[in-house]
Amino acid sequence: MLPLNPTLAATFRPPVMEARRWLEGVTFAPDRPLINVSQAAPVEPPPEPLRRAMADAALNLPDAHFYGPVLGRAELREAVAKDWSHAYGGEIRAGQVAITQGCNQAFCAAIQTLAGAGDEIILPLPWYFNHKMWLDMQGIRSVGLHCGQGMIPDAAEAAKLINDRTRAIVLVSPNNPSGAEYPAETLRAFFDLARSRNLALIVDETYRDFDSRSGAPHTLFADPGWGDTLIHLYSFSKAYRLTGHRIGALIASDARMVEVEKFLDTVAICASQIGQIGAAWGMENLGDWLAGERAEILARRAAMEEGMATLQGWKVKGCGAYFAWVEHPFDLPSPELARRLVREAGVLLLPGTMFMPEGDAQGARHVRIAFANADRAGIGALMQRLAGFQG
Amino acid sequence: MLPLNPTLAATFRPPVMEARRWLEGVTFAPDRPLINVSQAAPVEPPPEPLRRAMADAALNLPDAHFYGPVLGRAELREAVAKDWSHAYGGEIRAGQVAITQGCNQAFCAAIQTLAGAGDEIILPLPWYFNHKMWLDMQGIRSVGLHCGQGMIPDAAEAAKLINDRTRAIVLVSPNNPSGAEYPAETLRAFFDLARSRNLALIVDETYRDFDSRSGAPHTLFADPGWGDTLIHLYSFSKAYRLTGHRIGALIASDARMVEVEKFLDTVAICASQIGQIGAAWGMENLGDWLAGERAEILARRAAMEEGMATLQGWKVKGCGAYFAWVEHPFDLPSPELARRLVREAGVLLLPGTMFMPEGDAQGARHVRIAFANADRAGIGALMQRLAGFQG
Repeated sequence: MLPLNPTLAATFRPPVMEARRWLEGVTFAPDRPLINVSQAAPVEPPPEPLRRAMADAALNLPDAHFYGPVLGRAELREAVAKDWSHAYGGEIRAGQVAITQGCNQAFCAAIQTLAGAGDEIILPLPWYFNHKMWLDMQGIRSVGLHCGQGMIPDAAEAAKLINDRTRAIVLVSPNNPSGAEYPAETLRAFFDLARSRNLALIVDETYRDFDSRSGAPHTLFADPGWGDTLIHLYSFSKAYRLTGHRIGALIASDARMVEVEKFLDTVAICASQIGQIGAAWGMENLGDWLAGERAEILARRAAMEEGMATLQGWKVKGCGAYFAWVEHPFDLPSPELARRLVREAGVLLLPGTMFMPEGDAQGARHVRIAFANADRAGIGALMQRLAGFQG
Repeated sequence: MLPLNPTLAATFRPPVMEARRWLEGVTFAPDRPLINVSQAAPVEPPPEPLRRAMADAALNLPDAHFYGPVLGRAELREAVAKDWSHAYGGEIRAGQVAITQGCNQAFCAAIQTLAGAGDEIILPLPWYFNHKMWLDMQGIRSVGLHCGQGMIPDAAEAAKLINDRTRAIVLVSPNNPSGAEYPAETLRAFFDLARSRNLALIVDETYRDFDSRSGAPHTLFADPGWGDTLIHLYSFSKAYRLTGHRIGALIASDARMVEVEKFLDTVAICASQIGQIGAAWGMENLGDWLAGERAEILARRAAMEEGMATLQGWKVKGCGAYFAWVEHPFDLPSPELARRLVREAGVLLLPGTMFMPEGDAQGARHVRIAFANADRAGIGALMQRLAGFQG
C-alpha cells in the first residue's frame, strides 16, 4: 500500500480488538459461558432517569443536535470546575476545562500541545496501550519507567530518564492496568520534579470515582500555580456508564486551553451534545447512585484479592479501580497463556505484553484482569477456572 | 508556557470561533438582526421521526450506551457500502467503510495513514481551514494549488507541484469554500495523476447530497482498483442535520482500513452510538425528505446567484452546495471588510484570508458567503445590506 506513514504502520493494532479475534471459532458450553475480563466497560446501560434525560433532549431540545462550542457545553464545563475545585481544594475555572470525545482524545489533545516527532514522554510501566499507540503514531518516543513495590513509580527514578527531548511525564491513578492508587506524596514528588525541569505532568484520573480512599487523592490543584505544570484528564464513561457517547475532560491552564481548542476544533469540532447533556445530568443527579457503584466496585476488588490469594503461584502485584495486574505461575509467555485460557478455561483476559515494551520480561510474566464487570459469583467462577488451569 | 509543541503553536486559531468573537459588544436593532452567513450549519433540528428514533434508542436500546466497534456499527457501515456502491456504480464493501466522529476526523485519519512531519500534501486554493490546521499541527507542508475558471483545479498544474515528499492530493467537491462542483473528468484526471505518481487522492464529498447534478459525480469507484489510490470522505451532519452528534465516514482499501482503525481506536474508540443509530435511520427513511432539502438548497443557490448579479462590483467566482466564493469590490483587505460588515451592515461572513495562505492576494480580495441557512427572503435582505455598504 502506497503511500503509508511509517510511524502509523509501526504502531501496533488495537489490543482489545485483537483479543476479540481470539474468540473467533471458539464455542463455549451454555453452562460454562465465556468469562470476559479483557475490558472493563459497563455492561448495563445508565440508570433509567439518565436515559430518560438524554431521550428528552434528543426529542425536545433543538440544540442537542447542533454544533456546540469546541471546548464543550458551558453547563458541563462549569459543573466540572465547581466540583473539582471543591473536591481537590483548589481553584479551577470553567475556562480551564475542555470537554473531549472521550478521555483517549483528551490524552491526544494534551500530547499535541506538548510534543512532536522526536520528543520523548515518560510513562510508568506497565503503560496504558492507547497512550503508547498515540505516541508511536506521532513519532514521539515513549520512555518506560519501571514501578516499585505496589506498582508505585518513583520520581527519583524518573529524574534519571529526563533529557533535553523530554516533554512530559504521564501518570494514571488509579492505574490502568495495575489498579495502583498513587499516594498523594508520589504525585507531589512528580509534580515538583516536572516543575523543576520545565516539563508537564499529565495525570489521568479516569478511575477517580472508584478510588478506595476518601478525600482528595492529591493536593496539586491547591497550588495556585498548578496550571504551569499540571494537565488533568477525566472520563465520564465509567462513572455514568456513558462509554458509547465518548465524553471526557481535560483541565489545563488558560494558555494551554488556546492550543487544546485548535486541536479539538480540527479533530472533533465538539463532543456529542447528547453525551454532554447526559454527563451534566449525571453530575447533578447521580451522586448517591455513584457512591453505590463505587461501593460495589470496592466489594468486587476485595473479592478479587481474596480469591487470588487462594490460587497457587499467582501473585497480585496491584489491584484497584477496575483492574488487577497479576503475575502468573506458568512457564508460558502471557500471549500464549491468554489464548489457551480462552480455549481451555473459557476466560478472556489481556496478556501483560500489551502493556509493556517489546522484549520486556515483565510483559510475558503478567496479565491484566479487568474484574469490574464480574460480581462476587463471577469472580468466584473466575477463580475456579484459573485454579483448574494447569498450564 | 512550557513545554509547547511548536507546530501546534504555529497553527492558527479556529476561524469560526474567531469570527464569533467579532460579535462581542456589537448590538443589532430588533428590526435589523444579524444575518449570519459565516457557517453553514443546520439551524433546525432533525425531523421529528428521526429525533424520536434516537430518543427511543437512548431510552430502550442498551447498546446505544456501550462501546461500539472502532470502525463503526455494522448496520451503518453496510448501509453506506450498499448505497455508495449503487450511487457510484462500483463495489464498496462494508469492511472498507469506517465511521468517524465527524468528517473532520475522517480527514485527520486519512492523513495520519499517509504522511508525517516533513511530508507534503497538495490542496487546491482556497482550502478548507480545518484541513490546513491539521496539516500544520502535524508538521506537514500544505502546498497550495490555484484554481482556474469556475474554481476548478487542473491536474496538469498539480503535477508541477509534486516532489518526493508529496503524499496526497485533497479535493473537496462540492467545494467548501468555493461551492464549485468538480466535473467527473477533473476527478478522473487527478485520480490518474495520483495513481501514476503513487500518491493518494482524498476526495471529501461532505456536500454530495446537495450537488446540483444528478447521477454519480464521478466514476472513480467503478475502477476495481480504486482502493490503491482513492480515499473518500463523507459527513452525515448536513444531510440529516446531525452536526451535534459528530458522525462522518471514510472509505478506503482494506489495507488502509487496518491503519485507520489504529488511529480511531486511539483518538476516538468509537463514534457516538446514538449518532450512528440516527444516521442509519436517516439513510433508511429520509430519502424523500433529503431530496426536498436538496431542492431547497438549490433554490437558495439560484436566489444567491440572481441576487449577487444585481450588486455593483461583486463577482461570484464559485457558487454551489452551501457556499459562494465572492470577490468584493472594496479597497479593503477582507478581514477588515468582514469586521466592518458586522458593525455597519449586520452581516457576519468569513474573509477569504481564512482560506488562503498568508500573503496570497486572493485572500484579501474574497469572502465566503455560507448562504444555506438563509431562505429567499433572507438572501434578499442580505443583498440589500451588501448593496447599502459603500466601503
